[in-house]
Amino acid sequence: MGLRQQGASVVEPAKATVLIRGTGLLGASIGLGLRAAGHQVHLSDPSPTAQRIAQDIGAGTVWEPEGTPDPELIVIAAPPEVTAAEVADALVRFPGGVVVDIASVKAAILTDLLKQTDDDAAPLTMQHLSRYVGTHPMAGREQSGPVAARGELFTSMPWVICPHEYCAPAAVEAATSLARSLGASVHRMDTAKHDESVALISHLPQVAASLVASRLQDAAAGALALSGNGLRDVTRIAASDPNLWVQILSANARPVVEILYGLREDIQQLIGTLEDPEVPGGQADIARLIEAGNAGVARVPGKHGAPPQSFAVVTVIVDDRPGQISAVLNDVAKVGVNVEDLRMEHSAGHQVGMLEVSVLPGRRDELAEALTEMGWKVVLH
Amino acid sequence: MGLRQQGASVVEPAKATVLIRGTGLLGASIGLGLRAAGHQVHLSDPSPTAQRIAQDIGAGTVWEPEGTPDPELIVIAAPPEVTAAEVADALVRFPGGVVVDIASVKAAILTDLLKQTDDDAAPLTMQHLSRYVGTHPMAGREQSGPVAARGELFTSMPWVICPHEYCAPAAVEAATSLARSLGASVHRMDTAKHDESVALISHLPQVAASLVASRLQDAAAGALALSGNGLRDVTRIAASDPNLWVQILSANARPVVEILYGLREDIQQLIGTLEDPEVPGGQADIARLIEAGNAGVARVPGKHGAPPQSFAVVTVIVDDRPGQISAVLNDVAKVGVNVEDLRMEHSAGHQVGMLEVSVLPGRRDELAEALTEMGWKVVLH
Repeated sequence: MGLRQQGASVVEPAKATVLIRGTGLLGASIGLGLRAAGHQVHLSDPSPTAQRIAQDIGAGTVWEPEGTPDPELIVIAAPPEVTAAEVADALVRFPGGVVVDIASVKAAILTDLLKQTDDDAAPLTMQHLSRYVGTHPMAGREQSGPVAARGELFTSMPWVICPHEYCAPAAVEAATSLARSLGASVHRMDTAKHDESVALISHLPQVAASLVASRLQDAAAGALALSGNGLRDVTRIAASDPNLWVQILSANARPVVEILYGLREDIQQLIGTLEDPEVPGGQADIARLIEAGNAGVARVPGKHGAPPQSFAVVTVIVDDRPGQISAVLNDVAKVGVNVEDLRMEHSAGHQVGMLEVSVLPGRRDELAEALTEMGWKVVLH
Repeated sequence: MGLRQQGASVVEPAKATVLIRGTGLLGASIGLGLRAAGHQVHLSDPSPTAQRIAQDIGAGTVWEPEGTPDPELIVIAAPPEVTAAEVADALVRFPGGVVVDIASVKAAILTDLLKQTDDDAAPLTMQHLSRYVGTHPMAGREQSGPVAARGELFTSMPWVICPHEYCAPAAVEAATSLARSLGASVHRMDTAKHDESVALISHLPQVAASLVASRLQDAAAGALALSGNGLRDVTRIAASDPNLWVQILSANARPVVEILYGLREDIQQLIGTLEDPEVPGGQADIARLIEAGNAGVARVPGKHGAPPQSFAVVTVIVDDRPGQISAVLNDVAKVGVNVEDLRMEHSAGHQVGMLEVSVLPGRRDELAEALTEMGWKVVLH
């Protein structure tokens, strides 16, 4: 039976009262975004400090159960390891509310909840579960905590909604409205598919970045001084929070380990080849690995879901002085060309950089010519 | 005996006549840069097309041996697999010239050259070798060929000079002048140290990026639609040239494979842990991997050799319209704060982005306040 029949309400996204459990980076950011969208937002967190900071930055008001009407939407923004318990608690405590979690793994949480409906003495019923929807906003930062929160964190980012077979349609609608009102792009997917997807596009890159970065621990400083953008890009997300990633990798262990089997096989083969690269076929093996990488990276979507590599790059040489970069971009704007992406290329020891400006391919030559006329050192490639 | 005694000249960097053998991306870029610095540059390449394009873009004039005085500096910018042969040929052909190569592996080339001095009938003598210096400019792009060349390619990038035990001091000086006159930052290192260093900071990231990207070949489109900056960063260099990387990895097989042994061990351990993450100690193993990555990435130098993470970030929300980014940076310039680094954060499906402006930490609050007053949506973290 759906929420509508229970009188539990169709949640009105523009007005629903929301309780956010967990006021770390994501919870506080959701609070900021929902308040900006006109919602009344309550906050609670086991840490009084985190709760108070979230209130202070304007993410909502600390939840006072006494004399406050029940929230219509409860967002569980707790660490993955306690999410299922928090969801179950909220389903029981607020019989009229839709409960949404935002943990980055989904099957483990649903399995845990289903276990709690196993027999007549179990704490949850299917009625309870009908009001739960698992979701996963694909947003985050290397920083954490409510101080890093921002209401725009989800703007333009994917937000996965994972309805399960007992979901009430109104609950799915409420979850979808939540994501939309924060400016996210909604992707509907079942839990198993979600977990396999994030294992590949999020957990594998995290593991690879951490593995590569961990090899740098004992490197000579002279070697690290040669570092370029390649190493910086590959290792950037290695700065992530160990405590969070223990929970994510443990909870999504099976899909991740399936991918690691393939990775281990590829590395084993590469080791075999490199132990004797002159053996017939060895060089072809190496070429196949790099070509497979070419084929894979060509499938990664670019900005705004655009096909990969759909932008042309105009590189401008700039001095490292205040105003140089803005002066270039000011001139780009004068030409009337939109900047699709920006990248600074730089390295150790010098005071000059290359500003790489990505534009639609049809505007490239026009822009390069105009900037050159304006006196900039421009390079096309 | 050094070059000076042979009458072979101290190379005058401001005037030396240079022959560049190989007019791909790097050779043509060196030509452009050296001509801009006032050198007379000759070009030759087994491909008449590549040679002509390089001349057309202004990298030098096609080499005509008849009636032309011998070059004082010969730069071998050939693929790694033919570099030793080209070096040997140039040492014999131009008895007064310093010969420099720029291949990204060094020990294999020196070993090959030393083999050619083995006995009295060998084509090279130690006198020949005294005029050879191995070098490696740490620059390049995903693009290749002379069309992508630019004289500023080496500006502010490390350029490793690897003198060997038979090097004439004047030859090392000439190699150093070459790197300096192209704006590079000179790092002196022996060949073994160089090869171990690049195995770690260049070849390992390339292998990791290719391995991760190759796993995406058969991924569902729905999974790839969730891709974020993490995946994009980790896989960007997977777009590199297979033919070049076969040569690099084959020629530097031993140092690379030593690192891959460690990587294989780490992956094996992670697989063991994830096959049963509830086993006692399993979660601590995962935490240790992520923490090791934290420690490693913290050692990667930032821009201009600055200590990592030494900049503060001010994030500004911008619409995806022409002029928005330059308008922000124009206002940053008005405040008088220098932009140390820039990054656009974006994702699929929406028309808004976050411009992350890195500045010196002491200027962060001032800048954020000023931009907010100017009407920008600013987020600190």
